[in-house]
Amino acid sequence: MIKNLGRSTIVFDEPISILGYASVVGKKEKEGPLGKYFDKAYDNNKFGEETWEKSESRLQTDAVQLAIEKANLLPQDISYIFSGDLLNQCTSSVFGLREFDIPYLGQYGACSTMAQTIAMASIFVASGCGKYCSAVTSSHFCSAEKQFRFPLDYGGQRTPTAQWTVTGSGSVVIGKGENSPFIKAVTIGKINDLGIKDANNMGAAMAPAAADTIKNYLKDTNQKPDDFDLILTGDLGQVGSTLLIEMLDKDGINIAPYHNDCGLMIFDLQKQDVHAGGSGCGCSGSVLCGYILDRVKNEDLNNILFIATGALMSTTSSQQGESIPSIAHLIHISKSM
Amino acid sequence: MIKNLGRSTIVFDEPISILGYASVVGKKEKEGPLGKYFDKAYDNNKFGEETWEKSESRLQTDAVQLAIEKANLLPQDISYIFSGDLLNQCTSSVFGLREFDIPYLGQYGACSTMAQTIAMASIFVASGCGKYCSAVTSSHFCSAEKQFRFPLDYGGQRTPTAQWTVTGSGSVVIGKGENSPFIKAVTIGKINDLGIKDANNMGAAMAPAAADTIKNYLKDTNQKPDDFDLILTGDLGQVGSTLLIEMLDKDGINIAPYHNDCGLMIFDLQKQDVHAGGSGCGCSGSVLCGYILDRVKNEDLNNILFIATGALMSTTSSQQGESIPSIAHLIHISKSM
Repeated sequence: MIKNLGRSTIVFDEPISILGYASVVGKKEKEGPLGKYFDKAYDNNKFGEETWEKSESRLQTDAVQLAIEKANLLPQDISYIFSGDLLNQCTSSVFGLREFDIPYLGQYGACSTMAQTIAMASIFVASGCGKYCSAVTSSHFCSAEKQFRFPLDYGGQRTPTAQWTVTGSGSVVIGKGENSPFIKAVTIGKINDLGIKDANNMGAAMAPAAADTIKNYLKDTNQKPDDFDLILTGDLGQVGSTLLIEMLDKDGINIAPYHNDCGLMIFDLQKQDVHAGGSGCGCSGSVLCGYILDRVKNEDLNNILFIATGALMSTTSSQQGESIPSIAHLIHISKSM
Repeated sequence: MIKNLGRSTIVFDEPISILGYASVVGKKEKEGPLGKYFDKAYDNNKFGEETWEKSESRLQTDAVQLAIEKANLLPQDISYIFSGDLLNQCTSSVFGLREFDIPYLGQYGACSTMAQTIAMASIFVASGCGKYCSAVTSSHFCSAEKQFRFPLDYGGQRTPTAQWTVTGSGSVVIGKGENSPFIKAVTIGKINDLGIKDANNMGAAMAPAAADTIKNYLKDTNQKPDDFDLILTGDLGQVGSTLLIEMLDKDGINIAPYHNDCGLMIFDLQKQDVHAGGSGCGCSGSVLCGYILDRVKNEDLNNILFIATGALMSTTSSQQGESIPSIAHLIHISKSM
């Protein structure tokens, strides 16, 4: 059963489980501080494929396959798959999932996609639309640079606020059941836009969206930051994380003791020369599915909020002088029912 | 309540209503055979905006606003809005809906988006996630040509199988209630790919997806084409429509007496020089919300199947020699509960 709280929070009254989860990453992510936690980590970034786009699709194929295996299911057991990515017309998802023959619902939330697809999969399972649903997203440094910034060979300089797109993918399988971890609630975000126009400072553009969604969730459910072990944002990086903490602090909400950001965790910012941190749909996807969910299931984390943030611009909108609208969706994940 | 039939059909056991619907189109669509049925039809294609992209966003703003008004609601009454479009990173949707301050879930199904967003909005209402949900999509001839084909000024020749992207938008508001028309069921499609590589023949690429989804729906619900007054595909155009009828005929399913296609209805194919017909998310969106739903609510149509089809390629995937994967989602719409 589903209960609606406030404007946009959806609470599940029965146990909705993450039955399987998997992460797949590239070379730089393997060499980072979380390298040993990913289910599969390649030693190169092409994975035997011909193009960067096909390599990104391969990440999704691998992650979905592994998550379904870890849930002890087969692709034909999955009722619906929710996926999205950063490439034009979401082609990483389409070509990566084409072979599975699973009813497909393409999602677009930029780097908020891991939270959005988990929300959709959970709602479809809770409402009885299907027994098992998959969620997946990906990003690839090379396909993203090529599409959004400069040709790789150009070797463009990066600004101090720029983030490094993660080559990675995360996938989960959701079903009813008594397997930890559990999805307890989701909050769907609104489009926020405070007028940031610098496409090399996405963290600043996305921080207001994260602040808005966290505030809405805490208000809708009458909870406070102390109720959680970890408040994990997707890829705000260093600039955005600082802004988020400041913005919430002004509203009397202190998340600092519990906050971390996937973009700050996946790389060693200094040693790996990634400036303000990691980004991309695959950043929060791989960190959640590779490092965090294990800690919820088996270790120290009891109650976490996962807030993936997305910058909803395109190269065209930026070239036309538009600001960067952003969004953040939130998932409450818990060790116990 | 929601009932799941077969692999991918979702049936609603209580009345799910289309409380409001609206369509907005450009100049060529106003001059076409359905011109008088659209809620708003502009005499030009820029609508006072600076760029084609902003013009497309304006179509969504208008359509959503009108549909909400026709449902006797305000934007703040809408729990969630589902939207998507053809532009890179779905920016028509983001910039068109930014001002509404409604929790937003971006969808990507290419030209299947009108059916996908209606499906999502219906499921969210039926499952109790929210009281009212909006669905919207759009396309614009000029933004699509610029992005997918050639600069407009180039004046490129079009092949006989090419379709003309509709400048238009359709939007609905879904809620529980006893207002006709009703959403009775939806079938979610799988990614189909029979290897078509000609980006100027999308109808052929999409026909197998439509055939697959129609077959699944009829099998899951144990119905036959005779149970419907109209089986309406999104934008298969002349080539795709012929193929669809042939493909289903081989499986002993004769839809010919009931079939029509939004892409064949919106333009006079000969007089308006649109070759194989109309296309784009806005084609099925504006025809459904501008012409068809009125006929279901007030006139001759009692039971219809609406099947919007999408071609899930990008310019990059086509340039890399990939085939065109396609998808089709189906909505069963009825005059009575």
